[in-house]
Amino acid sequence: MISKLFIFITGPISFSFTSITKHPVELVLNPYSWTKLANIIFLDAPAGTGFSYSTTTDGYNTSDTIHAKRASEFLQRWLLTHPKFLANPLYISGDSYSGKIVPIIVQEITNGIEAGIGPSLNLEGYIIGNPVTNRKAELNSQIEYAHRMALISTRMFESTKRNCKGDYVDVDPNNELCLINLQAFEECISRLEVSHILAPACAPGIDDDNFLSFPFPEQLCRVERQRYSEVWANDINVPKALNIREGTKAEWARCNSSIPYIKDVRSSVDYHRNLMQKSLRAFVYSGDHDLKVPHISTEAWIESLSLPIVDDWKPWFSNNQVAGYRVGYSNGEYHLTYATIKGGGHTGPEFNPRESFDMIERWLEHSPL
Amino acid sequence: MISKLFIFITGPISFSFTSITKHPVELVLNPYSWTKLANIIFLDAPAGTGFSYSTTTDGYNTSDTIHAKRASEFLQRWLLTHPKFLANPLYISGDSYSGKIVPIIVQEITNGIEAGIGPSLNLEGYIIGNPVTNRKAELNSQIEYAHRMALISTRMFESTKRNCKGDYVDVDPNNELCLINLQAFEECISRLEVSHILAPACAPGIDDDNFLSFPFPEQLCRVERQRYSEVWANDINVPKALNIREGTKAEWARCNSSIPYIKDVRSSVDYHRNLMQKSLRAFVYSGDHDLKVPHISTEAWIESLSLPIVDDWKPWFSNNQVAGYRVGYSNGEYHLTYATIKGGGHTGPEFNPRESFDMIERWLEHSPL
Repeated sequence: MISKLFIFITGPISFSFTSITKHPVELVLNPYSWTKLANIIFLDAPAGTGFSYSTTTDGYNTSDTIHAKRASEFLQRWLLTHPKFLANPLYISGDSYSGKIVPIIVQEITNGIEAGIGPSLNLEGYIIGNPVTNRKAELNSQIEYAHRMALISTRMFESTKRNCKGDYVDVDPNNELCLINLQAFEECISRLEVSHILAPACAPGIDDDNFLSFPFPEQLCRVERQRYSEVWANDINVPKALNIREGTKAEWARCNSSIPYIKDVRSSVDYHRNLMQKSLRAFVYSGDHDLKVPHISTEAWIESLSLPIVDDWKPWFSNNQVAGYRVGYSNGEYHLTYATIKGGGHTGPEFNPRESFDMIERWLEHSPL
Repeated sequence: MISKLFIFITGPISFSFTSITKHPVELVLNPYSWTKLANIIFLDAPAGTGFSYSTTTDGYNTSDTIHAKRASEFLQRWLLTHPKFLANPLYISGDSYSGKIVPIIVQEITNGIEAGIGPSLNLEGYIIGNPVTNRKAELNSQIEYAHRMALISTRMFESTKRNCKGDYVDVDPNNELCLINLQAFEECISRLEVSHILAPACAPGIDDDNFLSFPFPEQLCRVERQRYSEVWANDINVPKALNIREGTKAEWARCNSSIPYIKDVRSSVDYHRNLMQKSLRAFVYSGDHDLKVPHISTEAWIESLSLPIVDDWKPWFSNNQVAGYRVGYSNGEYHLTYATIKGGGHTGPEFNPRESFDMIERWLEHSPL
């Protein structure tokens, strides 16, 4: 299994982005790997992503709910065949789009435990970072976020809000004023790296389907960095070293968009609302410089749960610096911590590895951030 | 004359912050010195700051208006004795607190020109960066800015606004709810570097009066970096090399707070309002990560001038990246450009030298940013 988390974000290896030849891509150890804090199963899911595969065509037909059900089944079966891990505290974790799936997986596992099905998992909680939750709400929050971050002017913000009536996604094609506003907004943000508004943006023409030759320029944009994974994973020695079953995968693709996928869960807030009745620890973090899933939409759905605050908004520290802010909520046996990563982007550990490591270490230890 | 601008910000020299011994402090050339774009007079003002001095005690008694009047007199006299520069286009420029003084100086010069007094200066305009304009308005805007940048929560922001009724400076000491809110705000921001919320903050105890020994740690905070100027300027060879008159200055101090100074101009907005009736080019820039003089207060007073927009808010570029946003206003022969520096701090060129250089070069050339 080689998920994006494994190589880029929270896993033990990363790339030496200074290597100037394409083969071999040089690997470096990630000093802030979360594998130092826990045993981690990195899962390529749904089937078809990364090195994962299905033996039937139907296995590739998937959706949010099927994806979650299969991930939960995978975990149960894996623990049945590795029973020595059964008693370990179990956390389900994911960033970005996985943020939508994780609460559904947790719900599946909880249902299974309550129904007494399969092995009894020691589920303690879940962790999601810059999580997709309700894509429409997140896209709508981008306008407010852009204003807060001075990417659009106050005049533009007020005008856009007024003309589009707060809905920037399902726009009436006859609403010309709103369309003009949205075009101006687009011009303001189109040349930014949406994952971190201060990170170098890729030059026009550099996109997922446009494979550049090595070496890359000194200051790599995000897509250029991610390309290393494709070069590495498609090296014939790598699948061998990772014990990938031969003949199952012709080519490893970073974002395999050829898989038929149905987004059948509009919002995962109801899953959180259900889970907050259980005995669980939840951790939600958000890099505050992410325009893709702005922290304000994440804060909005958390607030909509109306959980009582037990530990009010305060800074948390890493390396003796303010690394972000955190707030604690409780509802009986359900505890939710929300933390921002100051200066962080989409997928916190990618942009702030040290801070994210400290953050997750303390939370796993039940220490205050 | 050795102003902060000269050594840190827009001038030809800077320090090698990696030098590990105190003496001598190593100098490096600033590749983005604004001296490549114009002849610049760096002025230590009012008398008593930097290497400047007065031969009378009364010369040190100063205020916003006296400060501006004397700076304008200095300039007139200097140009009289250096007449070959008289015909050059003249711009008055300043960052931070100078932003309050610059429009008063420009007013003084304009008055002189209109009254036909002294040499006829070829005044073309003025440039101010993260300018102090109305300190109360700026301090008040810090709460909104902190909310926009996710330093305080939406709950805290709403509660503080409600309880303090939007005034966070002149607070009724009996208004306990407001005081509690402001204390929470203070806790959220007190460990930040106010000049740039993402820059390393100084450890507690490192302040202007607390001289640390060299070498400094790897990642220097702003005060630590600024210390180099004190070590350098107090080296006996430096005043000699700079032709400082001997015996005029016992010690060079970076922020000489011993000068009696009266802030007799509450707001310089009225000066801008007057100047916008003249034939002048004005340039206002603001680093958008500055909590000291948040861009939102600068934008608010510019908007209050009700100047017609002639060039709407759009990104500007440096090094093929969005370097910020700019908007152009005109009122007859008065033209004002406002620009943000994305990811910039208080004193733009200190945090974003390359972008600031490109920005000011284009503006001086009458090119679009």
